[in-house]
Amino acid sequence: MLYPELISMNNAVFRCYMGWSAILVLKMFAMSLITGIWRFITLTFANQEDLMSPKLKVKFDDPNVERVRRAHRNDLENILPFFIVGLLYTLTNPSAFLAINLFRAVGIARIAHTLVYAVVVVPQPARALAFFVALLATVYMALQVVLAAAF
Amino acid sequence: MLYPELISMNNAVFRCYMGWSAILVLKMFAMSLITGIWRFITLTFANQEDLMSPKLKVKFDDPNVERVRRAHRNDLENILPFFIVGLLYTLTNPSAFLAINLFRAVGIARIAHTLVYAVVVVPQPARALAFFVALLATVYMALQVVLAAAF
Amino acid sequence: MLYPELISMNNAVFRCYMGWSAILVLKMFAMSLITGIWRFITLTFANQEDLMSPKLKVKFDDPNVERVRRAHRNDLENILPFFIVGLLYTLTNPSAFLAINLFRAVGIARIAHTLVYAVVVVPQPARALAFFVALLATVYMALQVVLAAAF
Repeated sequence: MLYPELISMNNAVFRCYMGWSAILVLKMFAMSLITGIWRFITLTFANQEDLMSPKLKVKFDDPNVERVRRAHRNDLENILPFFIVGLLYTLTNPSAFLAINLFRAVGIARIAHTLVYAVVVVPQPARALAFFVALLATVYMALQVVLAAAF
Repeated sequence: MLYPELISMNNAVFRCYMGWSAILVLKMFAMSLITGIWRFITLTFANQEDLMSPKLKVKFDDPNVERVRRAHRNDLENILPFFIVGLLYTLTNPSAFLAINLFRAVGIARIAHTLVYAVVVVPQPARALAFFVALLATVYMALQVVLAAAF
Repeated sequence: MLYPELISMNNAVFRCYMGWSAILVLKMFAMSLITGIWRFITLTFANQEDLMSPKLKVKFDDPNVERVRRAHRNDLENILPFFIVGLLYTLTNPSAFLAINLFRAVGIARIAHTLVYAVVVVPQPARALAFFVALLATVYMALQVVLAAAF
């Protein structure tokens, strides 16, 4: 059963979802800033109008810039779906203990993913582990939502 | 008029939205797995730390990997906006018959899009058709949301 | 405090969020159409099955197509997070005046971003300005959501 009170500050699960979602949005925006910093360090600009000197040319293949862009795209593929699944999962009225720890798992794993991918490169399986923790937690929530919708 | 009961298991439209949204999230995650499978089959890894042998080099141009990545990006461009539009459209209290069939259209069309793009390549206009069915259904919903917000 | 009435047509903040979110979804879909138009003008197709003549070859480097794709990706990185942050920010029961103007700022800035990036190329700092107005407004909302969730 769903009750409007599920979407409320009095619901600790919703509150936890809100907090982690907003933190992960800020984390995603940090990727834009890191990309920008690398663009200026390596003078790698993708648009003619971004070149700050007539001597520069557009460039698309700097490995530092591309690494952060890959990490950012991975965020788009994984964090954005979490936003909707986490909200709908909250509306299935899950166990607070389980739900809160799933949100924490996604939040911490995705921050770890960024750190080992785009800040300090850590050998595998660090990134794979962070990736799969967040993925499996989100898949579990999605399955619960499908079940709640079906029955 | 909006009522809190619109976001409720008792609302068949919301329930349908929930189910298809969660299914489409799982479908999107499948793209990561298909990409991963192709990366291992073709030994195409984008990061130094992912190479499993010192003989391998990073590679960005495998056509099988890139095809799945294009399909995945198309999902980001089309399914993620549907998540928010579908939710807001549900809140405009639409006709249940119409809304449920629009959600089904989006869900089935996007699954078909993946199948003909990234699983078994089917000649055009298969992909274009799947793309436009989902796009037009989502555009219709978005227009209804704009109208509901404006008047 | 959160009340179910926050998600209601009677809440001018929610109504404003709804309208701008749907407009921004339509704006994002316009990027697909602009990309498609450039693909046909420049005969730049990324898939074998899209080639309309046996004389054509797949092509990935047309500057016009790539420019629109970069603008579209920037939308994915910035507008999609706004959708969830804007919704959660609405649920923190913010000042209507502030919230409505933040939503307008994001909406207008992102439309401006598209115009100066992908329609008529305008020299910097036009695009940077549009980018940062929307980013900072969304960051502010995200911080308010984190604070509301924490205290």
